[in-house]
Amino acid sequence: MKVSFQLFNCAKTIAQLAKEKPTGQVVTVKGWVKHFRSYKNFTFMHISDGLSAALLQVVIPEPLNNSSHVTVGSAVAVEGELNPSVGPEQHLELVATQINVVAHNDRKNFPFSVRQRQSPDTLRQHEHLRPKTRSFAAFLRIRSNLKHFIHHYLKINNFVYIDTPVLTANDCEAAGDVFTAEKFEKNSALAYACDNILEDNTNEKTFFGKKIFLTVSGQLHLEAAACGLNKVYTFNPAFRAESSLTRQHLAEFYMLEVEQAFCTSLEDLMKLVENLILNCIKTVMHESVEDLKICQQYHQTVAFDDLCRIEKLSSFPRITFVEATEILQNSNKNFSKNLKHLRKEDERFLVQHFGNLPLFVTEYPAETKPFYMKRNQDNTCALCFDLLVPHSGELCGGSLRECNLDILSHRMELLKIAEQSQWYSELRKFGYPDLGGFGLGFERLLQFFIGIRNIKDCIPFPRWFRHCST
Amino acid sequence: MKVSFQLFNCAKTIAQLAKEKPTGQVVTVKGWVKHFRSYKNFTFMHISDGLSAALLQVVIPEPLNNSSHVTVGSAVAVEGELNPSVGPEQHLELVATQINVVAHNDRKNFPFSVRQRQSPDTLRQHEHLRPKTRSFAAFLRIRSNLKHFIHHYLKINNFVYIDTPVLTANDCEAAGDVFTAEKFEKNSALAYACDNILEDNTNEKTFFGKKIFLTVSGQLHLEAAACGLNKVYTFNPAFRAESSLTRQHLAEFYMLEVEQAFCTSLEDLMKLVENLILNCIKTVMHESVEDLKICQQYHQTVAFDDLCRIEKLSSFPRITFVEATEILQNSNKNFSKNLKHLRKEDERFLVQHFGNLPLFVTEYPAETKPFYMKRNQDNTCALCFDLLVPHSGELCGGSLRECNLDILSHRMELLKIAEQSQWYSELRKFGYPDLGGFGLGFERLLQFFIGIRNIKDCIPFPRWFRHCST
Repeated sequence: MKVSFQLFNCAKTIAQLAKEKPTGQVVTVKGWVKHFRSYKNFTFMHISDGLSAALLQVVIPEPLNNSSHVTVGSAVAVEGELNPSVGPEQHLELVATQINVVAHNDRKNFPFSVRQRQSPDTLRQHEHLRPKTRSFAAFLRIRSNLKHFIHHYLKINNFVYIDTPVLTANDCEAAGDVFTAEKFEKNSALAYACDNILEDNTNEKTFFGKKIFLTVSGQLHLEAAACGLNKVYTFNPAFRAESSLTRQHLAEFYMLEVEQAFCTSLEDLMKLVENLILNCIKTVMHESVEDLKICQQYHQTVAFDDLCRIEKLSSFPRITFVEATEILQNSNKNFSKNLKHLRKEDERFLVQHFGNLPLFVTEYPAETKPFYMKRNQDNTCALCFDLLVPHSGELCGGSLRECNLDILSHRMELLKIAEQSQWYSELRKFGYPDLGGFGLGFERLLQFFIGIRNIKDCIPFPRWFRHCST
Repeated sequence: MKVSFQLFNCAKTIAQLAKEKPTGQVVTVKGWVKHFRSYKNFTFMHISDGLSAALLQVVIPEPLNNSSHVTVGSAVAVEGELNPSVGPEQHLELVATQINVVAHNDRKNFPFSVRQRQSPDTLRQHEHLRPKTRSFAAFLRIRSNLKHFIHHYLKINNFVYIDTPVLTANDCEAAGDVFTAEKFEKNSALAYACDNILEDNTNEKTFFGKKIFLTVSGQLHLEAAACGLNKVYTFNPAFRAESSLTRQHLAEFYMLEVEQAFCTSLEDLMKLVENLILNCIKTVMHESVEDLKICQQYHQTVAFDDLCRIEKLSSFPRITFVEATEILQNSNKNFSKNLKHLRKEDERFLVQHFGNLPLFVTEYPAETKPFYMKRNQDNTCALCFDLLVPHSGELCGGSLRECNLDILSHRMELLKIAEQSQWYSELRKFGYPDLGGFGLGFERLLQFFIGIRNIKDCIPFPRWFRHCST
């Protein structure tokens, strides 16, 4: 593509100035005051333009300082000349000739001090002001960069980006913990739709004429798209109405979901996940290293060292569920032979057992896995994997999809979803290729990379049980 | 960034083969049979891998053909040698040595014929099968490419990608046509939440403890992010519960929303929109030209010629609302002097009047515009613009944001949203820079570019009044 951009706004960012060091130039820089210290004949301040971790040191000669009324948190526009700095920490400083206070900061009424570290729990109570803190701004930039990279990676690998719907007639996977949506009617409190749901779930009074849910996964819709487009993905919000207050629950979260046609090998899928994650790590460590350091310092973790180790890997270890249970039994971990799934503590133990690296566990017992997963030949296990990682546990799950219409329909009848999702099983009639795919929790990826304890600090505006403040 | 990709899947796409023409090579190509014609000694078929508009011609010698049972719509894997083709339309053909039918197509039960053009209305009734049609697959690839480009464009312009929430406590802008969400309880039909909403909208029985809505716009949340990050955007689903069946209504749609700090000029905002759209047109016309032609042929429009004209522009015309009304009055369009807004037919007339080009209309009467827009000095008009375009009408709306806390709070009190959205007005206290931003309807952009009559055909899985089938 030859698209020539003519950018409308030519002002350099602080990061660009720090890199290019155009000393002698007269520039106007706009941003927020982060530090401020007055001396006898002049004042130092550091300003951030929010676009990177870089701060610009500004020197304000005394006459100018008296008239400016600048405080920490003010939005300012500073004109001046860029000079080499004599200080050890920065290589450039702006000697101000004019300061315009765009907007004052009412520090007395600001709900928390910006001079000392505030706990994540404190900041979370003021989610609209969190982006003003250095650590959360750094986090948001990392999140943005990583999301851009994932889109880029999938594009160059020929995946087509499909918007799967939020509103759906399916509630297949969530086993009850789903949200339902209805048109809000001011005059009848929350819902006039609660009456007279008919046997077939239709209701003339509802907006859609039937029960509608907020999606828990775009996979079923993605499969429909993959049947025409081969390689597809979505990166949209998903919802779970779990009445839980733990540090691992969000009611609204983001999932990368990928679906690939002509896929007969679980190993191929795992290679794709592995390659994606290793490249994500490289991207974060090369593109966002300053922000990553700010975040990890704030969260007081050693995740950076972990990433350095993992970045050097060419693949992640793989074990089967049966092998996982043997390891757990041999380690006296109070693990019952009859257990058909891994508990959180089992997952943590396994990740540590393999040197605190990402770990694929494959082929879980068939009865614990969803109806759409293909089984092995003797029907004992699902052709699936989970990827377990440090800090966040299960990061990603994938499987080959059941392509046999009779087998799939039978499972769906047992679950009483055969009619509701008939469109989904019907895909098998019309040139349904072997499909395989996975879902990856984006907040968990960030939690893993940065070492964030509470998943609620991995999303700009977290929603969870009892909490939706903005 | 130096990230070296090691792709896991080295098979070339049909588009790559068509470009590189590696004649003599033995390859395996996987895809769906699109055309199929048998002659005495051999069979021709065209297969698509879904990843581009390119078709590969396959020649099947007679002995192989008898054993393969291939039909149109089947998923196949074909091994053979690539040869130069003698036909006028293609430059490469695959002489098959082996055909594996991955999955048959049950043509008798396929709900519409793929041999003749089906109307968009017909295809829309089978939204899970639409991606199998050549025209809709082409549309989905255009949509994907355009979305990738918009992300790329905003990234290189230093905008940070922020996920604004779907679930929100604000219902500011929608004037009642909003969805509400609540945890679904199987045993009590749609909602147990309808009882006992208290005066302050809290309810212990609800999941979030109060009324929650599906977002109509991410703008308010974006402003909070812009107060720390300067330049931000979101590209998430938005929702309107309008009980309307017209060709311009969707209940779930995508909006690009951009917010920029230190923005005091409406003209700067319009330049950004203009530059974005002109670059989007270049991208579509250079990266997706084959798909664009397939789509426009299917939709029987002349939008391609329009795009060629518009691509050459360096800017779009701009008129004020007052100038617009004068044009409408002078043209005997039955336009009343007292009208404070433009009707759909007025917008269409103005676009045509200016040569069927995109047209900015600025400074609408203050009383017709939302509370968050800045007004001019004498408070008569809002410092805002709408961008009107051929085919889809209002594509984009933007404004400078009200930065005066007292003025904003007063307006919010009149609307009785001062308490609910106190977090939003409060941003003005703490170094609130001059903000400006816009929202652009993504489906309308596609409608404009391709010339699609019904907006429901601009999204993979449309939801509208009475319709949510998957």
